[in-house]
Amino acid sequence: MDKQRLTQILETLKNGELSVDEAAGKLTHVVNEDLDFANIDHHRSLRKGFPEVIFGEGKTSEQIIGIMERMITQENVILTTRVDEEKAQRVLAAIPACRYEMDARMLIWAPSDPEPTGHGTVLVLSAGTSDIPVAREALLTARYMGNRVQSIFDVGVAGIHRLMRHREAMEKATVIIVVAGMEGALPSVVAGMVKAPVIAVPTSVGYGVSFGGMTALFGMLSSCSSNVAAVNIDNGFGAGYMASAINHIPLPAS
Amino acid sequence: MDKQRLTQILETLKNGELSVDEAAGKLTHVVNEDLDFANIDHHRSLRKGFPEVIFGEGKTSEQIIGIMERMITQENVILTTRVDEEKAQRVLAAIPACRYEMDARMLIWAPSDPEPTGHGTVLVLSAGTSDIPVAREALLTARYMGNRVQSIFDVGVAGIHRLMRHREAMEKATVIIVVAGMEGALPSVVAGMVKAPVIAVPTSVGYGVSFGGMTALFGMLSSCSSNVAAVNIDNGFGAGYMASAINHIPLPAS
Amino acid sequence: MDKQRLTQILETLKNGELSVDEAAGKLTHVVNEDLDFANIDHHRSLRKGFPEVIFGEGKTSEQIIGIMERMITQENVILTTRVDEEKAQRVLAAIPACRYEMDARMLIWAPSDPEPTGHGTVLVLSAGTSDIPVAREALLTARYMGNRVQSIFDVGVAGIHRLMRHREAMEKATVIIVVAGMEGALPSVVAGMVKAPVIAVPTSVGYGVSFGGMTALFGMLSSCSSNVAAVNIDNGFGAGYMASAINHIPLPAS
Amino acid sequence: MDKQRLTQILETLKNGELSVDEAAGKLTHVVNEDLDFANIDHHRSLRKGFPEVIFGEGKTSEQIIGIMERMITQENVILTTRVDEEKAQRVLAAIPACRYEMDARMLIWAPSDPEPTGHGTVLVLSAGTSDIPVAREALLTARYMGNRVQSIFDVGVAGIHRLMRHREAMEKATVIIVVAGMEGALPSVVAGMVKAPVIAVPTSVGYGVSFGGMTALFGMLSSCSSNVAAVNIDNGFGAGYMASAINHIPLPAS
Amino acid sequence: MDKQRLTQILETLKNGELSVDEAAGKLTHVVNEDLDFANIDHHRSLRKGFPEVIFGEGKTSEQIIGIMERMITQENVILTTRVDEEKAQRVLAAIPACRYEMDARMLIWAPSDPEPTGHGTVLVLSAGTSDIPVAREALLTARYMGNRVQSIFDVGVAGIHRLMRHREAMEKATVIIVVAGMEGALPSVVAGMVKAPVIAVPTSVGYGVSFGGMTALFGMLSSCSSNVAAVNIDNGFGAGYMASAINHIPLPAS
Amino acid sequence: MDKQRLTQILETLKNGELSVDEAAGKLTHVVNEDLDFANIDHHRSLRKGFPEVIFGEGKTSEQIIGIMERMITQENVILTTRVDEEKAQRVLAAIPACRYEMDARMLIWAPSDPEPTGHGTVLVLSAGTSDIPVAREALLTARYMGNRVQSIFDVGVAGIHRLMRHREAMEKATVIIVVAGMEGALPSVVAGMVKAPVIAVPTSVGYGVSFGGMTALFGMLSSCSSNVAAVNIDNGFGAGYMASAINHIPLPAS
Amino acid sequence: MDKQRLTQILETLKNGELSVDEAAGKLTHVVNEDLDFANIDHHRSLRKGFPEVIFGEGKTSEQIIGIMERMITQENVILTTRVDEEKAQRVLAAIPACRYEMDARMLIWAPSDPEPTGHGTVLVLSAGTSDIPVAREALLTARYMGNRVQSIFDVGVAGIHRLMRHREAMEKATVIIVVAGMEGALPSVVAGMVKAPVIAVPTSVGYGVSFGGMTALFGMLSSCSSNVAAVNIDNGFGAGYMASAINHIPLPAS
Amino acid sequence: MDKQRLTQILETLKNGELSVDEAAGKLTHVVNEDLDFANIDHHRSLRKGFPEVIFGEGKTSEQIIGIMERMITQENVILTTRVDEEKAQRVLAAIPACRYEMDARMLIWAPSDPEPTGHGTVLVLSAGTSDIPVAREALLTARYMGNRVQSIFDVGVAGIHRLMRHREAMEKATVIIVVAGMEGALPSVVAGMVKAPVIAVPTSVGYGVSFGGMTALFGMLSSCSSNVAAVNIDNGFGAGYMASAINHIPLPAS
Repeated sequence: MDKQRLTQILETLKNGELSVDEAAGKLTHVVNEDLDFANIDHHRSLRKGFPEVIFGEGKTSEQIIGIMERMITQENVILTTRVDEEKAQRVLAAIPACRYEMDARMLIWAPSDPEPTGHGTVLVLSAGTSDIPVAREALLTARYMGNRVQSIFDVGVAGIHRLMRHREAMEKATVIIVVAGMEGALPSVVAGMVKAPVIAVPTSVGYGVSFGGMTALFGMLSSCSSNVAAVNIDNGFGAGYMASAINHIPLPAS
Repeated sequence: MDKQRLTQILETLKNGELSVDEAAGKLTHVVNEDLDFANIDHHRSLRKGFPEVIFGEGKTSEQIIGIMERMITQENVILTTRVDEEKAQRVLAAIPACRYEMDARMLIWAPSDPEPTGHGTVLVLSAGTSDIPVAREALLTARYMGNRVQSIFDVGVAGIHRLMRHREAMEKATVIIVVAGMEGALPSVVAGMVKAPVIAVPTSVGYGVSFGGMTALFGMLSSCSSNVAAVNIDNGFGAGYMASAINHIPLPAS
Repeated sequence: MDKQRLTQILETLKNGELSVDEAAGKLTHVVNEDLDFANIDHHRSLRKGFPEVIFGEGKTSEQIIGIMERMITQENVILTTRVDEEKAQRVLAAIPACRYEMDARMLIWAPSDPEPTGHGTVLVLSAGTSDIPVAREALLTARYMGNRVQSIFDVGVAGIHRLMRHREAMEKATVIIVVAGMEGALPSVVAGMVKAPVIAVPTSVGYGVSFGGMTALFGMLSSCSSNVAAVNIDNGFGAGYMASAINHIPLPAS
Repeated sequence: MDKQRLTQILETLKNGELSVDEAAGKLTHVVNEDLDFANIDHHRSLRKGFPEVIFGEGKTSEQIIGIMERMITQENVILTTRVDEEKAQRVLAAIPACRYEMDARMLIWAPSDPEPTGHGTVLVLSAGTSDIPVAREALLTARYMGNRVQSIFDVGVAGIHRLMRHREAMEKATVIIVVAGMEGALPSVVAGMVKAPVIAVPTSVGYGVSFGGMTALFGMLSSCSSNVAAVNIDNGFGAGYMASAINHIPLPAS
Repeated sequence: MDKQRLTQILETLKNGELSVDEAAGKLTHVVNEDLDFANIDHHRSLRKGFPEVIFGEGKTSEQIIGIMERMITQENVILTTRVDEEKAQRVLAAIPACRYEMDARMLIWAPSDPEPTGHGTVLVLSAGTSDIPVAREALLTARYMGNRVQSIFDVGVAGIHRLMRHREAMEKATVIIVVAGMEGALPSVVAGMVKAPVIAVPTSVGYGVSFGGMTALFGMLSSCSSNVAAVNIDNGFGAGYMASAINHIPLPAS
Repeated sequence: MDKQRLTQILETLKNGELSVDEAAGKLTHVVNEDLDFANIDHHRSLRKGFPEVIFGEGKTSEQIIGIMERMITQENVILTTRVDEEKAQRVLAAIPACRYEMDARMLIWAPSDPEPTGHGTVLVLSAGTSDIPVAREALLTARYMGNRVQSIFDVGVAGIHRLMRHREAMEKATVIIVVAGMEGALPSVVAGMVKAPVIAVPTSVGYGVSFGGMTALFGMLSSCSSNVAAVNIDNGFGAGYMASAINHIPLPAS
Repeated sequence: MDKQRLTQILETLKNGELSVDEAAGKLTHVVNEDLDFANIDHHRSLRKGFPEVIFGEGKTSEQIIGIMERMITQENVILTTRVDEEKAQRVLAAIPACRYEMDARMLIWAPSDPEPTGHGTVLVLSAGTSDIPVAREALLTARYMGNRVQSIFDVGVAGIHRLMRHREAMEKATVIIVVAGMEGALPSVVAGMVKAPVIAVPTSVGYGVSFGGMTALFGMLSSCSSNVAAVNIDNGFGAGYMASAINHIPLPAS
Repeated sequence: MDKQRLTQILETLKNGELSVDEAAGKLTHVVNEDLDFANIDHHRSLRKGFPEVIFGEGKTSEQIIGIMERMITQENVILTTRVDEEKAQRVLAAIPACRYEMDARMLIWAPSDPEPTGHGTVLVLSAGTSDIPVAREALLTARYMGNRVQSIFDVGVAGIHRLMRHREAMEKATVIIVVAGMEGALPSVVAGMVKAPVIAVPTSVGYGVSFGGMTALFGMLSSCSSNVAAVNIDNGFGAGYMASAINHIPLPAS
């Protein structure tokens, strides 16, 4: 509710210019108009220290530049996801303070590196080299949302011994993001080895009955390990965001 | 590696009965046989204070009784999921110390109530009355894995004001499990209102193009809110387990 | 917002027991708790003269009886959909004032027949004899929501001349509900002959590549006629409800 | 039946040039040829004041120009849907009286603005910025078919408070078109808040398990709100046409 | 148009009781009412010598008996398809003149065997023993629609030599119906060996990725042989009907 | 079996150069090598007067030219399907005796027009203008395989009266090919009006839940009319070929 | 070709009763009738020492008894798959020499145990306890086709260390059958550890997006290990048969 | 385990510098770090004489050159699959010792031809000319993995006699790879004629309901022949690899 309007109504009531009934009527009307009052505030606080994110796919470089320029005055970090190299070059020409992470296809504007504010470390594992772009998107998202991050790539299940070598890192992580295409078996194996929550990210890597990531996704959701939940295909950003939410769960004051 | 065998080989080496080469050979052999040594230990520790869980579907009451009787001597809590009433009655007749939660279709054996060990509260929301069995399975799983739990049922998106009434509870929760069938829109709406991680559980409630929960699942994975990850259809147990993993993430010593 | 609490705060302000600031604080708090105030009222008005509806599938006769008995004191009409005959008999034994419409599988409690309040007539067409249950559900829903209704059954496209015979009725209708299974072609043909809005209802009638109604549904949505919109498979109730919403659109005062 | 031919046969009978049998034979023949007599008339009246519509996808600019030039002499309004910018420029060069609406990808030829003839207002809501082209197609279709229109864009369910702000507009609308991609949850939420009929339009916005709009479509058809019916994916034109049909239902003379 | 009414109007005109205008008005009215005149006649002729067919699935034995009793006075042959044995027994008790073909699950009422009226022979081939019910339904349908029929069962592609043995019969047939489940490869092989049109009938025989007949159906439609067209899964009746239509194509008088 | 080799073996036997056992051995060997003897002959006869057909999709213009040049010496008619304009121009430059049918995307080489050899007329109906390429492919295939052909385009079910106008042509046809995309309802309607066999051809015309022709295909296979069988999506060639096979069924000598 | 008929024709030729032309004619006729001559022989040899197999699903116990009794005189081993216990008991009552393997749901008739004739050992691995029936079907099929067999059950990927324990057995096997439901990840992991060919068998174990085994199947076919090929869902018999074919590949004489 | 570190620990123990307990502790630590010791060795042996394979799709020519240059010093054969011509030319410019197989789209680097080491011959059959690229990929993979290979192309089931001609080659093969698109019927027919294991490779050849190879794949998995297992769509490489694994199964020493 608009503070000013509220105060004004209440003062008019106090002044005797309005009856209680009239004031009640006016207030009800204001409430109906301004239901979102609390939410706006809440959202503002939610955003503090968190990056603002632009979904770059389907936007022109002009549109991206426009949105970024508007935000730069208000934000500490701005991420733009799914930006191909050509588009990125045009944005960089306009906003040289940006940095382009080519493998993750992200544009990052951050005058200073974000401080890690999460409880522990977000570990990103990926199965094949083709999964790296999605894994990097997850990694950078988590890092710029204030998390210590670590990554181990190319540890697919067809050579299970490669994964075994990294058990210590897996056991130390607070949250693990596992990125895999094709049969998507890696999250099951990883989740069977740790107690931490595992965010599974299917990728569209594969062909034929990989069905653009659906087989990996369904395999992850059918996992016989239970500390696993999945996000949409190729959604590295969502995985990084969810991992950050987990790594920032509020602790009871003690 | 089997401690006893390891010590024995090392002592024989020390005694001079084996050369260094012979001992190396024997040890390599043992390693190859017993690769799982560390894992077993790890798994034992993992299980401490956590319930052992039996997937009841497709098992006869005799099989369930047999497994439970073997476990009772070693465990503090035993959960059996997906048990229909008839089967449950037969198990209760054999193991009267069990309790049957009919709406969640779970059998619970727990001599004493588990202490909450998680950081905060796991909140379970569900959309329709038909979603309650899955929601209850999630709730009881989380509770018996050592979490403070709270539930709010019947807050579907077709009457969004019912949900609004519970914003305070939502904002206080450490993890939120959202259970919904049909169009599965509730997790999107909830995740847009909070910072906490949201575990989305699609249910098979609905008909026609609800496709037994697939429409709800795909809707949840397509969510425009990013602090959401999903589990398999009707997998209340997995959601409770994942939420517990999140609520128990290790904190760095300070 | 709770009227009583609002008035009380305002009166305390008027009495000088609260400052404007204190009153503003209290009111903001109440608003956050009771956002749904307006909605509740709105919903009450929405329901006036409209039937309360119970989805009978998956509910026991005891549950249905319980819900109906609670409602009977407050409502003018109560509809229960998807009730098989056995369940219906048990409900009728408990609440003899009910009537069971066997072909529509509906239980209806209505002390007096509802007055038609809609602008014109809702016409229900169906393609085959197996589609009649869904068509009847649509018809009775529309009728008990206050619409003049008319029905023409068994006018499938394989004998297009049967449909032609009813052009006058089609041209006079305000809204037309068209119920069809198998290839679901009837709504296209009907919509091409009239100006009225057509609600298409696919049924699960058919076998093989009818896919339980999906082929009919997709055919209806792919219709080359444009005054057509569809509801879920076998959703006669939804079609009747939507048709009633159309037949009751508010007219500007003149 | 062709009036002239009918009269001629009857007169020849009256003149005695034909026997009753011969006249009957000739009439039967005419009926078989001219079954569509009534329809043609009906269609002509149907079209009055309504725009003629060309589906531009898959047509060359030459074909579009050709069709438009033929129609310009007979129609008041001509709409061409799904025209990309390049094609549009070529049409505009040939028919400068046209206007191109780039975001809706429509070409409009209308010497004078159409008068609103519908009963009330058609409100178009859309969830995300990527849904705007489809929403605009719906809006312009409705407007050029003689409806007062209003639009509110970017009110997705991930920030439900943005929607709340517009309840008054929603409650005043006669028909509401709701356009949404991804999880397609918006129509459920909107329909739960109003009594008006809601036309749900899924869009192909999204990736992975959004399945090019199918998840949104199935979510809309599975909606737990009942005053909702859906059209095909990205079919803004169909939604605008259906909304217009609803907004023009004939009223009984009084 | 009803001959009697037509004649009556024309005679009244001839008698001078009606003016040409009045007669024209009456005739137009009749035409609008009776558009189906030609069709009805046409349908009557279509049915001559052809069996009337009842789709037995989903009908009770009482309903089947009722429909058959009404038809017996007007028809020469009545076929009822998809009747299980229990239902059949009850019909036979009421109408002893019927015969039940158990493997084809058909009830047949035919006082005398139909004369073959088609040009040549309809040959029915089937792949496995489980396909026989569908094959027999096709065979009996064709036979009772007036075709010479022949059948060769159990000639699946996994033992291609069994098929080779019957080339002469294949080459002599006028139309060939090929019934196959699982991979549905038989129609391709057969059509590659003959010039005659082949009607492919997929059956729901199989498991796993046979998908209840869809794999067979899609294989048949993807056939690299071109003299093949397919009917719905398990639709033996439709195949027999289509084969009969082909075997009865009208020949130009010479 | 190669006649020459057979005769040679038999003569050697007759001459006493071989024993019966030796001759039997040699003959068995020849049979194993030459199993296809009869087939080759059969195929040669099959081809007489029939066009040779090249599937042009995925072949370069060079490949098409090469194949055609090889065939020209042996065939009377050569059809190449699915050739785009650019490819066609290159073929025409090399083989000027060819003709390119742009709408059907076919290249035809035929020194003289084929004589109609079929029993009656093949009628091709199509629903929308976008279906014409497929319809034309069917028409030209049928014509060059020796059939009298006739076509009626643009008679979709959304304006059923347009179809009615052509009932006489439909009733006179020996076989009818019906081409339709989107909801694919036309074959059902047509088949309900005639006794002739109907070949249904789904096209990939449409968008969204038209699923590239699958909805049309499934609708056609679910048809409530029984004298219908379907071919693959966009398979105009197959439909023309099948129709020709039907129009050429052998008649018993009389 | 029938040896007797061949000899007879050749002798008549030698005797001068037939001319070479007449003999050639007769032989051609015989060839056309008896094309399968070589095949039959070949098939007989194929069957030697191999079990005859009856697919029990959908057959009554009477049918199974009938088929078995006919075969007993000719075969050494008869397997019947997919027989439930009730049916099995009735068969055992009639043919007491049979044995019923309840977990594999197979009936086995084998007077003496088959000698292992394959090159090495067929190893059967399975992931979960619910996969055992399919694994046992594979195992018994392989064993009764003359293979040394070994099995290791319950080594799913969620506890990868359990699998590691059995590397020696895996490395010694000639062929490995891997049976897994849910996410079906086990074959990938196993194939990455060995050089032997791996036959992957998906099972219908799981729920929700396990899709009755499809997710497991597609995961297996998308495997990043290359020495893997798959059979149909739950097709333990086929896997055992294929493994036996591999274990019996003919070796070049040396 | 690292031999050097192992020996060092054991020697320190023998020297008395460590107690048995201390040595045990150190060894356990090493084991946890180096679990993959055995695997690495095993993999090295696995690779001996086998080609290293690069999946070329989605890699730039620069990346391929880089990887190949690194490998050339260590390997005897390097295969790169799925390389289009343009990319290949750039690689050939950098590494002229490579050879490009255009139809198989493979780059091969092999200073000397590999010796056949497998037991017998791998036969590759393919159905249509469009299947040849996949068939050639299988053939070359098998050949460079040390197998005698043979190929027979263009023996589709629509002309079954063409296949019959090659029975001798089929019966002599040790393993048969069958490549087919469209309805994918060829593997069933082939497997029914031989005892050898058959690897079925579906291709994406076809259109409409061929579904990019899925219909072929599902047909192959539904095969009524049992000595068949399938690989992913268009996976010629996997088929060649699997066939090689079968052709190299270890034989027991004798």
